[in-house]
Amino acid sequence: MTERFTVTYHVRSDAASIEARAQGIAVEQSVEMPLAAVDEPSVLTDIVGKVEGIGDLGNGLFSVRIGLALATIGTDPGQFLNMLFGNTSLQDDVTLRDCDVPARFDPGPGTSALRTRLGVPARAFTGSALKPQGLPAERLAGLAERFALGALDFIKDDHGLADQAYSPFAVRVPMIAASVARAVRSTGHLTRYIPSLTGDLEQMRAQARIARDHGLDCMMVAPMVAGFSAVRALARAFPEVTFFAHPSMGGAARIAPELLIGKLFPALGCGAVIFPVYGGRFGYSPETCRELAANARPALAVPAGGITLNRVPELLDFFGPDTMLLIGGSLLLARDRITEESAAFAHAVASHGNTGHGH
Amino acid sequence: MTERFTVTYHVRSDAASIEARAQGIAVEQSVEMPLAAVDEPSVLTDIVGKVEGIGDLGNGLFSVRIGLALATIGTDPGQFLNMLFGNTSLQDDVTLRDCDVPARFDPGPGTSALRTRLGVPARAFTGSALKPQGLPAERLAGLAERFALGALDFIKDDHGLADQAYSPFAVRVPMIAASVARAVRSTGHLTRYIPSLTGDLEQMRAQARIARDHGLDCMMVAPMVAGFSAVRALARAFPEVTFFAHPSMGGAARIAPELLIGKLFPALGCGAVIFPVYGGRFGYSPETCRELAANARPALAVPAGGITLNRVPELLDFFGPDTMLLIGGSLLLARDRITEESAAFAHAVASHGNTGHGH
Repeated sequence: MTERFTVTYHVRSDAASIEARAQGIAVEQSVEMPLAAVDEPSVLTDIVGKVEGIGDLGNGLFSVRIGLALATIGTDPGQFLNMLFGNTSLQDDVTLRDCDVPARFDPGPGTSALRTRLGVPARAFTGSALKPQGLPAERLAGLAERFALGALDFIKDDHGLADQAYSPFAVRVPMIAASVARAVRSTGHLTRYIPSLTGDLEQMRAQARIARDHGLDCMMVAPMVAGFSAVRALARAFPEVTFFAHPSMGGAARIAPELLIGKLFPALGCGAVIFPVYGGRFGYSPETCRELAANARPALAVPAGGITLNRVPELLDFFGPDTMLLIGGSLLLARDRITEESAAFAHAVASHGNTGHGH
Repeated sequence: MTERFTVTYHVRSDAASIEARAQGIAVEQSVEMPLAAVDEPSVLTDIVGKVEGIGDLGNGLFSVRIGLALATIGTDPGQFLNMLFGNTSLQDDVTLRDCDVPARFDPGPGTSALRTRLGVPARAFTGSALKPQGLPAERLAGLAERFALGALDFIKDDHGLADQAYSPFAVRVPMIAASVARAVRSTGHLTRYIPSLTGDLEQMRAQARIARDHGLDCMMVAPMVAGFSAVRALARAFPEVTFFAHPSMGGAARIAPELLIGKLFPALGCGAVIFPVYGGRFGYSPETCRELAANARPALAVPAGGITLNRVPELLDFFGPDTMLLIGGSLLLARDRITEESAAFAHAVASHGNTGHGH
């Protein structure tokens, strides 16, 4: 028997049509041709998608489970995505809701590795972002140092920082790494700088080498921009690095974020996933955030996107300690008091567990 | 003054909020932080996105034009996509409708190169697809030969064919190339085989080398799976190859297909773009298809997805001759008569211009 993995789609349909529609998806996502034209029996039994179940969710929405053959995806995560949703993404009555992630795709070093490296055994992590793009490298390095002097755990590049003329990667990253290292010597806290890798695989690999040569063991990628295969190749090439997945271009109303960010990004080897927090600038619900974070673990859950200091206790209660809170704009607004504001953020997180609020 | 390119978003909003919402997008897609925290004047003038115009489309929908700084994207098409829609893709009141494509991104060899290579000066092109996945390479090669004996112009891999154990690229592609070459010697018609490249950039580049070494000058990629940067890197590395863009994972209800497939895929260096035809298995309208094809040219427009032979005259009238009609399943249903059915398809297209139907 062929080995299969199950994919769950949500389909808008009427009850009379759903069986045919489910079968249509099973064909579209496997052989993509009329079954009457398939003249090889083993393809019909082993390769064509199989409808495993249909559930009525009410209001004209159905949950359809389809078993796809593992043999169709091999070991390439790009092909995995192609088989999950390639053509069906073009049919707007269907969303991709969930799937089994084959064991061959496993996350790299995640929460527990980060706890060991930073010497943070139990509490949640803190982080901020270097912005705005358009600043020269020196200015970003100065900003990073001020964050780090507040003893934040992580300082990441804004996802808009790429390899632009005003701040080339090869100039920016060593400079920021050095300024964070200086702050670490001063605070004694092992703050990590997370540079953003961009471009094609070769460019990202060259950037990762620069970062590693400057002592960095955390890096950020945007899988929906970089491509699933490229991210997986990077994670394989740098097994000691924790890759933070940025959700840029992940705005697939058509792929559930619980799946895309929560399951698939870790499957590429990302040990940490950044996602929009409920109640911030983006419209994710608490339920989506909860399921996304649960799916992602043991990768580190990193809610972001409009978090303010006053939400720290609420969000730590909600997400628990295997979390990094990422606060960007709200810290930057402190301008001359960025170090003090960062220290207040670090303190709020560190003291949370001590006040009985924690999980 | 900073050089800018214009991006058009469609935004659901009420009239009272649209100006603030437009400004919010301009910030999100540039510096992504409160402007009050930007303490560098040149960033405010040169880098922050600028709302250039707002139009009321009625029914609570607005067209918002935003000028983004060219300096933010450099020469990386992944970063271009990131700046166009990265974070805003996560906000479901906005779709990406259109943009200027900076001149640095240009398509590779397209329609006119294909006309020269195949000796097809004026008429539309014909094509079919090798399916189902799960067949061994020999069977796919046999199928290709039967298509080619019908004198089709192009025979492409199904986008489900990757580098699977049952038909590895390095075995399949030379075998199919040889069988098509055999048919070409018999028919005298310069049929092209288009293999599908998958995996990360290194894997795709290795596959492209194999294909080129077997005389192939047309190849297929899926930019939304492979990543924009990887496709551009491939197009640069193989400037003589016409890359056919497959729309897999392009089901961005949130990015207009006229833009994504029609403009952005050619900007990666793809000289031909495959897209769902109206009235087929996918829900694209005639208007979408018309604008998409117009945007794509001089790249070759390749409608596909449920075309049957009887639609050839209608579709050629609609799309004109700078088009390739791609018929897969419908030819495959002919089973033992695939060569004859392919020949009928080739004849229908070749004779279309002669009967006064053409544009």
